[in-house]
Amino acid sequence: MAVYKTIEWLDDVKAVRLLDQTVLPGTIAYQTLSDVDAVAAAIRNMTVRGAPAIGVTAAYGLVVAAYREPSGELAAVQQAVRDATLLLKASRPTGVNLFWALDQMTARVQHSAFDNASDYRQALENFALEMAREDIELNRAMGQAALPLMPEGKVTFIHHCNTGALATVDYGTALGVIRAAHEAGRDVHVFVDETRPRLQGARLTCWELENLGISHRLIVDGASSHVMQQFSVDMCVVGCDRVAANGDVANKIGTANLAAVAMAHGVPFYVAAPLATIDLNTGSGAEIRIEERAPEEVAVINGTPIAPAGVQVYNPAFDVTPAAWITGIITEKGVAFPPYEESLARLKAQ
Amino acid sequence: MAVYKTIEWLDDVKAVRLLDQTVLPGTIAYQTLSDVDAVAAAIRNMTVRGAPAIGVTAAYGLVVAAYREPSGELAAVQQAVRDATLLLKASRPTGVNLFWALDQMTARVQHSAFDNASDYRQALENFALEMAREDIELNRAMGQAALPLMPEGKVTFIHHCNTGALATVDYGTALGVIRAAHEAGRDVHVFVDETRPRLQGARLTCWELENLGISHRLIVDGASSHVMQQFSVDMCVVGCDRVAANGDVANKIGTANLAAVAMAHGVPFYVAAPLATIDLNTGSGAEIRIEERAPEEVAVINGTPIAPAGVQVYNPAFDVTPAAWITGIITEKGVAFPPYEESLARLKAQ
Repeated sequence: MAVYKTIEWLDDVKAVRLLDQTVLPGTIAYQTLSDVDAVAAAIRNMTVRGAPAIGVTAAYGLVVAAYREPSGELAAVQQAVRDATLLLKASRPTGVNLFWALDQMTARVQHSAFDNASDYRQALENFALEMAREDIELNRAMGQAALPLMPEGKVTFIHHCNTGALATVDYGTALGVIRAAHEAGRDVHVFVDETRPRLQGARLTCWELENLGISHRLIVDGASSHVMQQFSVDMCVVGCDRVAANGDVANKIGTANLAAVAMAHGVPFYVAAPLATIDLNTGSGAEIRIEERAPEEVAVINGTPIAPAGVQVYNPAFDVTPAAWITGIITEKGVAFPPYEESLARLKAQ
Repeated sequence: MAVYKTIEWLDDVKAVRLLDQTVLPGTIAYQTLSDVDAVAAAIRNMTVRGAPAIGVTAAYGLVVAAYREPSGELAAVQQAVRDATLLLKASRPTGVNLFWALDQMTARVQHSAFDNASDYRQALENFALEMAREDIELNRAMGQAALPLMPEGKVTFIHHCNTGALATVDYGTALGVIRAAHEAGRDVHVFVDETRPRLQGARLTCWELENLGISHRLIVDGASSHVMQQFSVDMCVVGCDRVAANGDVANKIGTANLAAVAMAHGVPFYVAAPLATIDLNTGSGAEIRIEERAPEEVAVINGTPIAPAGVQVYNPAFDVTPAAWITGIITEKGVAFPPYEESLARLKAQ
């Protein structure tokens, strides 16, 4: 669908190719990763980001590990994949798609008996490719599920971070919802939170919306209350890295602020969450480990310090939005409304 | 009090000297302004910023205009001051201190009869110097008025924008409250909103707190909800550019977001407002004209674009925090609590 590809499996060389999201939109560059250390590093340094994209990249990381194992003995290849799983799980701690994707890969190959490394490698490769295809399908399904939540005619959104084709294999989660509205002929306008510190909104979401021809304006993260006062905002829509069983949502830092502002203004606040990001084993947001990242992400922009040298920084990468602040959670099987304990469990059981 | 001086009247050359706040903290540079066009430009381009500092700078701007008038005829000097008043009033539209300071200057000289330009110039100069002295005194008084609002021992603040010595003649408004707590021996820690787009928190507040030896950590503006979840925050405290009669507060963009987040967490939210910023002629925030500034303030940081070229930007410089979201308004004559129509009118009448 998009002219660029966020994640692509290179069948001929058995490697994964990533669009380097750290240099967008100024530079369109790809990285071809043919060993699992490089894949883990790309997740850690955010060459690829966005929970669904990280999940599929990690799945390909296992395939890469399987093909790179030099002996070609089945047991050795299986051990290499187990080692790669541990390595990849350590790359980013907050999202659940990463763990889900790796566990899915493990589970699928465990259900089969393999005679040789070649069959095992091929099975892993097929599972990863299938996961990538499914990601696109479920994003489209979320978009369709969300359409009844919007007015006909003009629809004004506020969006946080990047949740588009760049955050997924293609189409997007929350941005997929916006895209579905646009494709359904609604008159869409998007206020785009720039999303400090890493500016995924400014750098990536504006670029995607421009490529899609969707009307938008960039705002600083602090401007959403003023936007809601001055314009008729129909909904905020964001993605997520993990949804707890009670409906608490971990997502990019700044999400909970936007939700509090929306609540204060009576603006609906929706989370687009593939079922894979809903983790019924996490009871509430309090159980989610929030990744803290380097102070330089805040204190230095494009190589130039924006604060006194040596300033102390608190840089959590994510926050937890309490379930009580969330109007609904959009999944590929429909929209969950409170009480989320029941509605999420029901959707997961389908 | 501070080693640097935000605004200084140079008696020998009859000019105003400003610390250039656009290049802090990397560079300590001063600008000496000896004509009123330069003073108006310095306000517009934010060489000086912060409502109280703008007010006093504008007052000095009138003195500069009076001394620069070439003929030295009383009527001509008075006309030059009237022209300067109009020019300075057009420099920034949202704050009220600017208008208040200029109107005060006009009112004071109108109550006197002058025989010659020399006496008139000296009177203007004396009034401006007095206004500058009063600004420091009332900041200290606000700090004292706020102390009973805080716990003994450890006090944790969240602060937005810059409201310190740099935003005033000296000492600060909201940062003056924090400084008073520190000087009173409380164990103070401040989470500093970086305050996009112009990063006054990162650039200026962190620098001031470092100079004062007050413990602090820089955060992105979107992190305040997470901070309130993870730490025991005692109060948010911000400055203001204008308070309406009903208690609605216009202040730097992002203030209303912080207030909504504080409300959602039950954290007290205080505004430090010299009585000069309370405008009983403004009924509510809806009447306040909000300045919109250039898109480049958002889309370009330190000369480097952070978004696609030509991106549409919505860049309001201020927002309005509804009175209902504000716990109390700290003035030099005490703290106003809801209902603000009554409490603010009472304090203004004192």
